[in-house]
This record gives sequence, C-alpha cells and structure tokens, in this order.
Amino acid sequence: MLTSAQSRFLTGLFPGDACALSPEETCAFGGDSSRLFHQPWAVVRPEGREQVRELLRWADAERVPLFFRSRGTNVVGACVPQGGGVVVSTLRMNRIIDISGRDFVAVVEPGAVTADVQRACAAKGLFYPPDPASVRISTIGGNVSTNAGGMRAVKYGVTREYVLGLEAVIPGGEVIRMGGRCHKNVVGLDLTRLFVGAEGTLGCLTEVTLKLLPRPQATASVLVGFETLEQALEAAAAVFRAGILPVAMEFMAAEVLAALEHVTVPPWPKGTQAALLLQIDGSEESLPGELARLEASLGAESPAFLEAGQGAAEEGLWEVRRLINPASFRVAPDKMSDDVTVPRGEVARAIAGIREAAGRHGLTVLTFGHLGDGNIHVNIMYDKAGGELERATALKREVLGVVLGAGGTMSGEHGVGLTKYPYFDEQIGAAERRLMRSIKASFDPNGILNPGKAY
Amino acid sequence: MLTSAQSRFLTGLFPGDACALSPEETCAFGGDSSRLFHQPWAVVRPEGREQVRELLRWADAERVPLFFRSRGTNVVGACVPQGGGVVVSTLRMNRIIDISGRDFVAVVEPGAVTADVQRACAAKGLFYPPDPASVRISTIGGNVSTNAGGMRAVKYGVTREYVLGLEAVIPGGEVIRMGGRCHKNVVGLDLTRLFVGAEGTLGCLTEVTLKLLPRPQATASVLVGFETLEQALEAAAAVFRAGILPVAMEFMAAEVLAALEHVTVPPWPKGTQAALLLQIDGSEESLPGELARLEASLGAESPAFLEAGQGAAEEGLWEVRRLINPASFRVAPDKMSDDVTVPRGEVARAIAGIREAAGRHGLTVLTFGHLGDGNIHVNIMYDKAGGELERATALKREVLGVVLGAGGTMSGEHGVGLTKYPYFDEQIGAAERRLMRSIKASFDPNGILNPGKAY
Repeated sequence: MLTSAQSRFLTGLFPGDACALSPEETCAFGGDSSRLFHQPWAVVRPEGREQVRELLRWADAERVPLFFRSRGTNVVGACVPQGGGVVVSTLRMNRIIDISGRDFVAVVEPGAVTADVQRACAAKGLFYPPDPASVRISTIGGNVSTNAGGMRAVKYGVTREYVLGLEAVIPGGEVIRMGGRCHKNVVGLDLTRLFVGAEGTLGCLTEVTLKLLPRPQATASVLVGFETLEQALEAAAAVFRAGILPVAMEFMAAEVLAALEHVTVPPWPKGTQAALLLQIDGSEESLPGELARLEASLGAESPAFLEAGQGAAEEGLWEVRRLINPASFRVAPDKMSDDVTVPRGEVARAIAGIREAAGRHGLTVLTFGHLGDGNIHVNIMYDKAGGELERATALKREVLGVVLGAGGTMSGEHGVGLTKYPYFDEQIGAAERRLMRSIKASFDPNGILNPGKAY
Repeated sequence: MLTSAQSRFLTGLFPGDACALSPEETCAFGGDSSRLFHQPWAVVRPEGREQVRELLRWADAERVPLFFRSRGTNVVGACVPQGGGVVVSTLRMNRIIDISGRDFVAVVEPGAVTADVQRACAAKGLFYPPDPASVRISTIGGNVSTNAGGMRAVKYGVTREYVLGLEAVIPGGEVIRMGGRCHKNVVGLDLTRLFVGAEGTLGCLTEVTLKLLPRPQATASVLVGFETLEQALEAAAAVFRAGILPVAMEFMAAEVLAALEHVTVPPWPKGTQAALLLQIDGSEESLPGELARLEASLGAESPAFLEAGQGAAEEGLWEVRRLINPASFRVAPDKMSDDVTVPRGEVARAIAGIREAAGRHGLTVLTFGHLGDGNIHVNIMYDKAGGELERATALKREVLGVVLGAGGTMSGEHGVGLTKYPYFDEQIGAAERRLMRSIKASFDPNGILNPGKAY
C-alpha cells in the first residue's frame, strides 16, 4: 500500500480526477480482458510527457511498481497490477498529432484508439494496416506494447513493421527518443523494435511514429467451405502456389462451424468440415481478375461451397467470423483461449494433436484464426460450475505441448502477460531469459515496471 | 598481437587452411569496401557451431577481439579489425539447410550468398524479397548484421522484416536461439530483431531462419524523365496518391544524368533534370492494367520522356541504374559515398541543401537512390591528388548537418561501422547510447566483439 506521503505526492502531481485512490474508483482498473484482477494502490492519468517524467522519477526513487494500461483489452493479464502498485492510464494522452501524406507517417500519443488513427489516415488516402480484433477500442500504445497482429498480417505484417519511431520515459524520468520519421534507419542497436512487444516492461511510451502506406482502392473476400480439413489446407496452399498473397486468410474448423449454426443460418451446406475466409485488395480495375484467380486456385480442391463478395456483401461474409465469440458460449459457459502459433505447414498436425487431447478430456475445443500465419486461436470450452476447470487446465497444458512439439510458440499475438508466464521456461531457454532480464535491467534497474510479467 | 600460445590454440582449433597467421595470408581480410584497412592478427574459418563455441569461449577468456566477416562488401568499415584482433570468416558456414514451401521459410547458415538463397527459393516458387545492391556477392549473415535494404524496400521492407529466427553464439561460448519458423511470435523481448543491424557486436550468427513469400508472377518497370526536380517529386507523390505501392521507386538527379551521358547513349532528351525508375509486380493478367495506371499517374506531370518495359526490355531500363557507379568516376577520380535518409517528404529540401553546400565547396555531388524510402545515396566526387580531400571532408560533414536538420538519419542501410562512428553523437542522444552499450554488455561483457564500432 502507499504511504500517506506517497498518496499526497500523487494527488499533487495529478490534481482532481487525474488521480484516484479509493478502492471504489480504482477497482475498474484492476482487471483486463483476462478476467484476472488485483486491486490497484492508485490510478493516475497523465496528460503529457512532463507528468510522466515526474511520475517515473518518483516511482523509481520510491520503488513503487507501475502498471501501464490503456483500454485493458489484453487477454493475458498484462495490465493487471498483480502484487500491487500504481496503474498508469494513458487514455488522456490520446492526441493524433500529425498524419502526413508527404512523409507517409502518423505521429500519435499512446492512448489514441487504433481505429480513430486508421480513420484519420483513410481521410487522407493513407493506410495503417494492422487490425487486431480489438481495433475499434484498443490503442496504438497497447498495440505497440503487445506487437498486435490481426487479420491483415498475412500480407501486411504486424504492428512491429509499422513502428518507425518512439518516445518513451524510463525509470528515473529520462526521456529517450528512438527512430523517427524516416522509413529506413540503421544507426545503433534497434531500441525502437525492442520496445515493440515488451509489454510495458521497459518504459512508458509518450509518442509513437507509425509508417503508413498508400490506401488500396478496393477489397474483395471469399468464404469457401470443404468436406475435409485436408482439402481446406490444400486449397490454402494452392492460393500461395498461384503467387497470390492474400491480405487475410482465416480458417474455421468443424467445431467452429457447428457452434456458428446455433447463432446464424449458415451459408455452407451440411457436412462442411472446414471453411476459409480470404480477403484480397488492389485497384478497382484489377480486382475482379484477381478475385477470379483466387476462386480458381481454391476451386481446384472442389469446395462444397464458395461465395465471393465486394462492398456490403463482403461485410456479410466477415460477419460470420465476428459471430464466433458469441457462438462459442453456446458450446459451454466457460472458455480458456489461446493464440498459439505453429509453422505454417504444421497446422494440420497441430489441430489433430489438439483434437486428440480434447477427446481424451471429453471437452470441445474450437480452433480457428489466422491460418496464413499459422496463428491458431484455440478456445477450450468447459463448464466451471460443472466441475470441468481441472480438465480444462490440464488440456491447456497439453495444447501447449502439442504446439511446442510442432516447433510452435505459445503466443502469436497476445503476449505472455501473467497467464502464460508460468509456461515461459518450456519455450525459452535459460540463457535467452537471462539476457532478456539483463536488458530490462538496463532500462529499469529497480524492476518497477510491470513486475512479474512477460519474461 | 597474439602470443605463441594463442596462435597454437587457433591452429589447433582450425587445422590446415582454416587458420591463417602470416600477414601475406591475412592481409586480404583486413579491409572491406570502405577501403579502410587494419592488419588482422589472424584469420579463422569455422565450419560450424561447435568450432564457433570453442572460439568464443577462448576469445572471451583471453580478451581477444573478434571481427566477423563474410564477403566484406560493407562500405563503412564494419568488417575492418581496427585496433587488432582475429577476423572470423563465416564463408565456410554457407549451407542452405532448408527451403520449405510448406512453412514458407528458408533456413541457412550465415555465409550463404543472398542471390543463391533467392535462386533456391525461386526454384520452388518462393520469394525472398530483400535485394541489396550487393545481392550477388553479399551473404545472409552480412545482410542480417546490417539490416540490408535495397531497391524493393518500398513495397517489401528491409531484411529485418524477413528474419524469423536466429541461432547465435555469444562470448563465453553459449548458444542462444531466438524466434524460429513461426511467422508470428511475441514471447519475451525481441532478441531476434535486436541482432538485426547490430553489426556483429552481440554474437556470432550460426543459423538464420527467413520468412518467404509466394513469388509474384511478373514485374514491369518504367523509366521516366522530367524537366524539373519538382515535377519528378510531384510525379512520385502522384503514384502513391493513386494507391499504387511500387516495388521500387528510384531517383536520379540532374548531376547523375549528366554523368551517365559519359558512359551510355541516354534514352532521355537533352534538358532532362531528374528521372525516376519504378518497378511494379503482380499477376500476368493484371500487370498490363497496373502498368497503365502507373503511367497515367506519372503522366499527369507531363514527363519529358517515359519508357516502360517488361522482360528483357525491363532489364535494359535497370542497366542505366547500374551504370551510375562507373559513370561517377568520369566526374572525378575519388568518391565519398553516404546513404543518408530523410522523411519521404523532405527529399527536395535535402537535395537543395546538399547542392547549395556542394556549390560553395566547388564540388559535384551525385544524388540518387531509393526515393520511395527517402533513402538518398550521396556521392561526393573529388580529386584527392588535386588537393580536394579536405573540401570533400568538410562537405561530407555539412551533408550530415543538412540531413539531420531535415529530421533524417545518417544511415538508411549501410550502418555506422567505423566511418560514421565519429558522428554518432550528432544523431543519437547520450541516454540512448548508454542504453545501447549497456545492452551490448549483457551479451558481451568484456567488449570483445567488433570493438569501437557501431554505437
């Protein structure tokens, strides 16, 4: 808990509603989308760099842990102030400072909502590609701190590929500036990308400079179903073989299609065992031809169903994808979700292994997600009240074993946070972990930033 | 110099011609394309990880500096064993271990030549995009250590975007493994990308896993000339505004066009003041339409000349670009070259500033290069024998001032090495430099790897 002198310092630095100390006010900041919770000692809402500097100077001297957060969409507990400390909300640092069509950069504060940034870019004919599922509510700062992925990563890569420059404050209050507005820069060690995905363990972001692309004129999508999983994966391979690099290549396994039938009248015929949802983009002129090529490459595997769409029809195809989350709770009331990733060619093996383990435990697992990156979302559905928690936990561990056995990683986009922290050593060696911690100590020698998380 | 015990250790670990100690044999390894030179104490040629481990265990204990090198195409002296030490050639670790069309990865040893890797990928319908100008002779290990760029960076990014996994040996002989074959991975701090561009200061690479893309079916290029620099830059902006993301967008200023007239019959009319060379790629079917769109967007600025080509005709257009280096020496016998980068919209201002400074010093400066990234190659042409070295050196420093004043960086793709090391503090702050050195100390506490370089 904070001493009364410490509380006075915080209310002095953050006047009015910029500081909250009572449990009633702070409890909303104790959790995130992981549903884990720890009561914060206090919540502060800085409005700019100078307040952040003062805060980090003080917290380092006082050894007060700090937990940065914006919208709390994190699903692995990375925002939870486990062990106690001060939650630092970046939501009042949300300015879009500059969207430049000359330099093809956006300069924003970390609390800017990603969809707002995308809209501001689109209004100038510019394109910020990363689109995590949380894009409408999550922030650039959170996206950078987790190296957020999303649907479009197959063609456009992840957040890391778009971070050109960062300004951050490190413990002690020093401001560091990394990279800038240049699209290429190879001077010194790459501190910029070291911050990407660091889960708030190195410093507090105060400004982010993003790379933008010219906005593609048009998109089109295809939803396609197959009678076997193997056909679906073979069709996906055929797309790449045709030299097509789709924007997105999503996948839904049989269990997901069955769950969706509870909440919608599905467009696919009975007996469909797997579906792909693909998007391509390009110019108005060439898109119809590219769509025909895509359909032809998928058609070689004799799909049970194929529907293509542009404009409103395209939106309708993607609606199916968005229904997976509500549909999942028709299978069972509780869910453990994971975003494991395997080498692209190992998806069939991983799904088979996961199904085998699920069958042994008598639980349903939904597998779907970013097939184009080998990034499979695994939802273990169970009934906590019905006493299935233990089996679900055992299954989660077995899923990790399957994934690591296939050369995979425990997280493709969600990060480690708290929930994957106990499994870290199963994937990362002792030497590598020691190096990560030693690097952290260069920025945060007293370990006050998001302690007990990430690595 | 090495003691006789140290020499014996090296000849024992590296039998036969895998170790060279005599100045006659080692002198070829004392320089790189910077034309700087320092006599190595010895040259060793490991064939695999275990030899590298032994070497790094010994070198750390004995405090013997190590300088990794492959083909020595580096132009900033990053391979030069300044201060003395052992040169470690990675050229015998040149296996292409795996090219996987299932996982879309290539696994190679650091000494594999980049063009060989690209050819092996192409034979399987796969595509490794980074193409530094040295691609036919430089290696993947060198490309990773410098985060090599190249022509195609506008659309496809730089080497960093394609490094999925690394294996390296650090001082003391420990093997560390970072990342792997997964296209997405966010577990722990990003050690993988920290190694990219680190100029051999953190460890010795022993294996690199690269991300591959499906191979585009076809390419087409356009060479276009304008009567003013402003028109050329406006035409480049119009291409992006049309939503076109070209593979490459190269630029040649008036001084470059004049130099080229010494070595070829140019296709552009007299009075052309700037030229662009653009490449696009896509499917056989849509490329003609995309080429027409590209020509239309360029045409709005009334070019003095425009020639488009596919196949052999396309090769011919790019031949002009390759003639710049030989042509430059018709201007003056000596050259100082830089690869400064500015924000994309600051190119006109940077070129004006560079020309103004060149005029004051009575020297010709050739500016050309990767306009799409703001990455401008600056060749200061001078006559050393004619006493112009001092003026050229002063001008080089002024060019740096112009570039930093425009929010630029001293290097977009060549790195810092030795030649830019004296200017490092003009761009990077004390706090950031301290952090970089502290991070290095986590890997190399005794400072034996490429000392006195990079940061």
